[in-house]
Amino acid sequence: MAEHLIEGMVNALSSLPGIGRKSAYRISFHLLRQDPAVFNGFIQSLSEVKGRIRFCSRCGSYSEEEICDLCLSEKRDSHTVCVVEQPEDVFFIENTGEFKGRYHVLDGVISPLEGVGPQDLRIRELLNRIEPEDLKEVLVATNPTLEGDATADYLNHQLKNFNISVTRIAYGITVGGSIELADQYTLGRAIRSRLKL
Amino acid sequence: MAEHLIEGMVNALSSLPGIGRKSAYRISFHLLRQDPAVFNGFIQSLSEVKGRIRFCSRCGSYSEEEICDLCLSEKRDSHTVCVVEQPEDVFFIENTGEFKGRYHVLDGVISPLEGVGPQDLRIRELLNRIEPEDLKEVLVATNPTLEGDATADYLNHQLKNFNISVTRIAYGITVGGSIELADQYTLGRAIRSRLKL
Repeated sequence: MAEHLIEGMVNALSSLPGIGRKSAYRISFHLLRQDPAVFNGFIQSLSEVKGRIRFCSRCGSYSEEEICDLCLSEKRDSHTVCVVEQPEDVFFIENTGEFKGRYHVLDGVISPLEGVGPQDLRIRELLNRIEPEDLKEVLVATNPTLEGDATADYLNHQLKNFNISVTRIAYGITVGGSIELADQYTLGRAIRSRLKL
Repeated sequence: MAEHLIEGMVNALSSLPGIGRKSAYRISFHLLRQDPAVFNGFIQSLSEVKGRIRFCSRCGSYSEEEICDLCLSEKRDSHTVCVVEQPEDVFFIENTGEFKGRYHVLDGVISPLEGVGPQDLRIRELLNRIEPEDLKEVLVATNPTLEGDATADYLNHQLKNFNISVTRIAYGITVGGSIELADQYTLGRAIRSRLKL
């Protein structure tokens, strides 16, 4: 019955985020049932994307070329840079359609527990962009976690030496959410970040 | 930002059962972040399993060889055959440890709506096994659906011409379940299938 082979496939699929063993079995049997040509198409599309995507040498987000289309676009506001933790954050922010500037990916956050210091992040690369790109605003969009907050504070401190406005995206009650269901930290943050109406 | 490449990967992953677009994005970003060597190992393990697994020419279940280990094993009861719809059903029944005979995979069920008739299933192959393997019991383990029931009835009818006992696995209240929560069809079936204590 080839259990050990099936188990091998199940183990590989279980390593993906959000895939438990039950889902992994379901997907495995789906793939095993699949026509070999369809299966190969599936495998090839994953491999091709993985092979073609690299990281923009300027902003660090996903790119097909040395410099990504967002960095090269003349239509973007070249004086505003949004700083994010991961390349995928660029994708999520772009999806909102609310930001028209450029990006800078840190490739992580400061985390003493995991031994990640400022020198391990793409912070020097950010500072090196300020003058040549004539940056006026740095919008920090790190996650509202202990590490994300510490990283935002560190960046704010570093950027003080430049004539540049440092802002941070607002963290508060989810749109469509309720005060009743928000946790105390989110609610506290929403109160501290209150805006004048 | 290579959106169209990322979308290609997301589309491929969304085609898997139980993977919605949100999970597909999560998995895509996980794969894009992955070290190329780890990614290649993942892809290779899927491809290798797919390439090495074929179907047993006798019983139709998953196998690495022409004839599977379950068909060849001397320890199994060679006179009892469990008939299932799909190769993976063999896997689930083996997991119970309750069945010690051999298997026969139909590769589907009779479904007039989908244009699947008895001749499209591996029923002739089952009948051809009766004499050479000296079968005494055929345990029908099709699903308790309209099509599964019709297929079980058809098999029962076909096997009447042979000196063979035809049985079917019991369908009733789930172990650990409750009468209150069982649907009326399951409960009705459990009553019809009642056993003497």
